[in-house]
Formats: sequence, C-alpha cells, structure tokens
Amino acid sequence: MSETKSLQEAFQEAPVKLAGHGPRNAAVLQAAFAAVDSGMESDMYGAGAVIEDFQEEMAELLGTEAAVFFPSGTMAQQIALRIWSDRMNLQAVAYHPLCHLEIHEQDGLKELHHLKPLLLADEERLITLEDVKSIAEPIACLLLELPQREIGGQLPEYAELEAIAAYCRVQNIRLHLDGARLLEVLPYYGKTAAEVCSLFDSVYISVYKGIGGIAGAVLAGGRDFTEEAKIWKRRHGGDLISLYPYIIPARYYYRQRAEKMGLYYEQAKDLAAMFNGCHKVSTLPEAPVSNMFHVYFGVDRERLEPLLVRFYEETGVGLTARLKERSGGRCSYEVSIGDLYGTLSQAEIQAAFRRLDELMRQIG
Amino acid sequence: MSETKSLQEAFQEAPVKLAGHGPRNAAVLQAAFAAVDSGMESDMYGAGAVIEDFQEEMAELLGTEAAVFFPSGTMAQQIALRIWSDRMNLQAVAYHPLCHLEIHEQDGLKELHHLKPLLLADEERLITLEDVKSIAEPIACLLLELPQREIGGQLPEYAELEAIAAYCRVQNIRLHLDGARLLEVLPYYGKTAAEVCSLFDSVYISVYKGIGGIAGAVLAGGRDFTEEAKIWKRRHGGDLISLYPYIIPARYYYRQRAEKMGLYYEQAKDLAAMFNGCHKVSTLPEAPVSNMFHVYFGVDRERLEPLLVRFYEETGVGLTARLKERSGGRCSYEVSIGDLYGTLSQAEIQAAFRRLDELMRQIG
Repeated sequence: MSETKSLQEAFQEAPVKLAGHGPRNAAVLQAAFAAVDSGMESDMYGAGAVIEDFQEEMAELLGTEAAVFFPSGTMAQQIALRIWSDRMNLQAVAYHPLCHLEIHEQDGLKELHHLKPLLLADEERLITLEDVKSIAEPIACLLLELPQREIGGQLPEYAELEAIAAYCRVQNIRLHLDGARLLEVLPYYGKTAAEVCSLFDSVYISVYKGIGGIAGAVLAGGRDFTEEAKIWKRRHGGDLISLYPYIIPARYYYRQRAEKMGLYYEQAKDLAAMFNGCHKVSTLPEAPVSNMFHVYFGVDRERLEPLLVRFYEETGVGLTARLKERSGGRCSYEVSIGDLYGTLSQAEIQAAFRRLDELMRQIG
Repeated sequence: MSETKSLQEAFQEAPVKLAGHGPRNAAVLQAAFAAVDSGMESDMYGAGAVIEDFQEEMAELLGTEAAVFFPSGTMAQQIALRIWSDRMNLQAVAYHPLCHLEIHEQDGLKELHHLKPLLLADEERLITLEDVKSIAEPIACLLLELPQREIGGQLPEYAELEAIAAYCRVQNIRLHLDGARLLEVLPYYGKTAAEVCSLFDSVYISVYKGIGGIAGAVLAGGRDFTEEAKIWKRRHGGDLISLYPYIIPARYYYRQRAEKMGLYYEQAKDLAAMFNGCHKVSTLPEAPVSNMFHVYFGVDRERLEPLLVRFYEETGVGLTARLKERSGGRCSYEVSIGDLYGTLSQAEIQAAFRRLDELMRQIG
C-alpha cells in the first residue's frame, strides 16, 4: 500500500510535522480575528489606524523613518529597486543569482520596470565584498538577502556586511535589504533589527515567514522613499481598499512569535545536528544561523521517496511533502523551524532520527 | 456645537445611514470566517480548492472559459489591456476620460506597461458607437465601463452596446469590460451576466461593490487569456501565497447579495425620486439604471455642509461623509444602495426627505 502512496499524501497523513507553525487553514485567520473588537474599522486605501499603527510599529522595530504595508514582497522589492533606479538614473542593479526577483517573479522587474540586474557571486555561495568591488559598471542599487534562502539560509559574517555597506556608501550605491527572514537572523548576529537595518537604505521584511502571518510585507526606509513607494503601490494594484485581512494576523502573530526567534534558532541547530548524524544526510549550512536550513540526502529521488513514505508511516513524523532533485543524484528540502517543533518530546525526536539513520543505512 | 462639527463627524455619529451595506469593520470578516470550517485549507500561490472553486463559479456566472481571482481591479485591468496590446502588437488602447485607469491608478498603465490610451467621448457623457467609429488609428483594445461610475453610473442602451461590440469584432479591436458593477446593472438590462459578457473578449468584476466583500477582483475570458494573466499577476506581485482572506468573504457575500441586485435597483429608483423632489437637489442619472447614482445639490459646499450636519443631527439619517465640489457652485456625492436601505421604514425615509426639502428651501 505504501508503495503507491505519494510523498505528499504520506506527509499530509503523518500526525506530527517537524517544522513550521502548523497548517495554513481558516483557523489561522479565525484565531487572529477572534482577538480583535468587531467594531475595529478597516483601513481605507492605506489610511486608518489599523494600517498606520502597524506601519509605525514596524518603522520603530526597523529603526526607519517610515514603513509601508504591502500585499507582497514581490511588489515591495520591485518598487524599492525601481525607486533607487529612478533616483540614480541608472537601470542596472545587482543581486544574487538565486534572488527572489530573479527566479520566482516571472521577470516582473524586467518586464514591468525594465531594470537590468547584474548577478553577483554564483549559485553555490554568498555575495562577498570582493564581488561587489568587482562590479565594472555604475549600478543604482545592490540587493542583499539575509539570510540567502536558496542556499540554505546562509549569512555573511557581520563584519563583512558592514564592509559591504561602507563600500556602497562610498561608491554611491544604494543598499536594499531583502529581509524576508530578517527577524530570524537577529539571534545569530546578536543585533537588533534596527542595528542591521541601519546599514541599508531600504528594507523589506515578510510577515508570514517566521512570524507566520497570512501574507504581506513591510517596506521601510526614509519618509521620502516610503511616500514614493505608496505611489508605486497604487500603480501595481497593491493599494487595496482594505489590507486588514493581512494586517490583523500579521500583528497578532508578530506579538506571539517575535520573541521566539532565538528559540527557533537554537532548535534549528539541534535538529540540524540530528540530520547530520544520519547516514548520507547533511544540512546546508551545517550549523544553521537562523531557524532555517536545507537537508540534503545523498540518494536519488526514486529510492528516497519510498524510504521517506515508510519513515512517515512508521514514526508518524512527517518531514516534507516535496523533494528537490539536486546534482550528483541527491535530493534536498527546506526546513523552517516554527512552533510545531516545541510540541515534540526529545524522546520522540531521537527515536525518529534513529529510525531515519537505520533506513538510510539499509539503502546503502 | 454643530457649527464646528465636520460633515464626516456628523455622518459617523448619525445612527442611520441611507446607503451601503454598513460599516467596513472586523465584524464583516468575522462573520465570513465563522461560516467556514476551521480546517479549510488556504490557497497556495493560486492553487487549491478555495481559489479554484470560486474561479470556476465565477467563470460559470460570466460564461467564460476561465476566471482568475486578483487582489485588485487595478491590477486585473492593467493586465487585461497589456495582454491585448501584446497580442495585437499595438500600444494604443481606448477608454473613457473618467476611466479608473486614467484617474485613480497613478498612471500605472503608462508607467508600468507603456500603453497609450486614447480618450473617447468626454467627461459629461458615455462613449457612443460614433465615438468608436471616429478612432483614427489602430488600437488593440477598447475598454467599456458598465455602468460608467464617474458620471453617476450611466449605461448605454443594450442595442448600442451590441452595435459597439459588433463594430469592434469587424475592426479586430478587442473589447474589455470594466464590470466592477456588472451584477448591479443586470436587472436594468434584463440580461444574465453571461449574456452581457458574451459581447466582450475579457471581463473584470469587483467582489466588493454591490457584493460587499472585502477587496478583490475577478478577471475572466478564454483560458489562454487567463493563463497569461496569471503570469502577469505574478509579475505585479499579486500572486500572493494566500488570497483566501478575500475569497472567503467574496463567496460568502456573493451568496447573500447576488440575488438582491434587482431589489437594490428598485430602491435606488425610489430614493432618487425622493432626492429629485427636494428643492435644488437632483440626481444623475435622473432615473438610476443600477443601485448607484450621484446626488447634486445646487448650493456651494460652504453653505451645504452646515445644512447637512444639521440634517444628520435632526433626523439621525446620514447621507455622506464627504462632498465633491462641482462646477457652477454645486456639490455632489455618490449613493450605492445596499442592505442598509431596507432596514429603514418608508415613514422614516419620507420624514427625512420632507426635512431635507425644508432645509434646502430655507437656504434659498
């Protein structure tokens, strides 16, 4: 029976999941809305207490003059780069080859804004100061993603980040932070959000990664920047009559989880060590620097999927619904630690990993 | 005391409002979310039952092959025009001078898509077949808005609409329907949504006008069109991980109100007649053709505002929070009939209008 069951089915049926905050279902919304007064008024096209108060709270968190709530990070970041491009009168911007704008947005930056990205570093590693110094033409803006999600959530050392920021300032290059998971890296850096953001000219954070809201993003910077961003938000079709269906959950889950990022980070390190203790299993990075990392199995998908289905069925622990095929006959998936991990006992987790190690050894 | 009270304050304090469905507050969402099972799964980047089922239901309503849920009409309509422009290899499109894309979107169509709108007719009247025939250059697409909101929600006669559609077909001009308020005009036309939409190549409807959802739009047409629209939706930053906070209320209030459009239309005609019976008050159109119309007062704002504040305080009936200044020392505001109107007794309404007439006569 388990031979024909797909990994996704087996994952869904597994009573326990190791990562995440739990299912994205109506209950997530219902809980957030049950916590507000029914008379609380909607925002109206960017105005009103519900959006303005949250924007102020986020600006304070990030240490910027102002912040704007967006329906998506895709919209917020294209707009940030467009504003810097217009101000510098340069169409070239620079980012990592696995930047969200390059691989997940159907080339919106190019098709809508006609910007020309230079790709720095390569798909296997972070952007370094040397990469930035090697840029041979004038650029308006450099985008850095902290942590760099598509390579397991790696981070530059803080001194390197400071050096890049200092170099950009001297070279008159605007520095934008893709901080989708900014809060998640603060425990590793031992910095406040405002300290990290002070190195950047503009910042985007997501409200549904570690925070676990429904959708939405915050774009922050100087007030002239955010006011211009609001005009572009209208142009993109993102200045909705009402964004409170996203803002209320963002605020609700931010209050619950902002302080837990240190816990998630510690749990991620523990969990990565257990994966690394299994035969032919490793993590990237080996020691996580946030709540996230990638798990690599040195086995091809054809052999790995039935093994994982069996593992989910035997232990009741689901790891992932999908595997990504990688070079060298390997597979990987992404882990982001959330509230679920803390609901498991160490004994359960250790028993599961003993079984994973056994199954991986059987496969050879 | 009432001298210093603003129109907006007086309106907010008025216990009864004549138009609309009621306040846009958290209760609107709480009611919609309470009606779904807490285990109902979120949509994920456009996939999943919650979004796919609603899109199918809307495609069936509109008689099109397919439909796509968008966070906003702004996004949906720019994308529709862009697709037709690309396919026809023409940057020119045509629409009314008071089209939403021309006056409410910070020129997104021009700034993001580089399209060149020709403005047909003028700000006082509808686009006619003669206007369309007078277009002197090739255009990709003509956008018609039914009803034309900014002139009180006027409509062409159905035969004129059919003639325009036939002309566009012959001339190889794509015809796009801005049907933000399409459901609201069906009782006047005596047609189904699918019948009206059959005249068009693509259609947008809003889920928060007469339907009274939170925000969001549906873009419908052939499947090749909607599949291309999904790519542009991703580019615009509108392909959110989760749109269910808008889809659930859209479906919930659609079920409650789709059948009430005829009632709203009848009520709008009654109400307009009462306004037209008051001294120096008139409506545009004189006889509404949907649930909406504009009310014109032949008095300047300086004299009208204190009069309306007094009217709200004396009768308890609020008309509007804001007035628009018009040529010839007049003021106007927009009425959209919704559920609130039916909660008032005819006696209450008639007493209020007797008082409005008296106050307008006192002013001279």
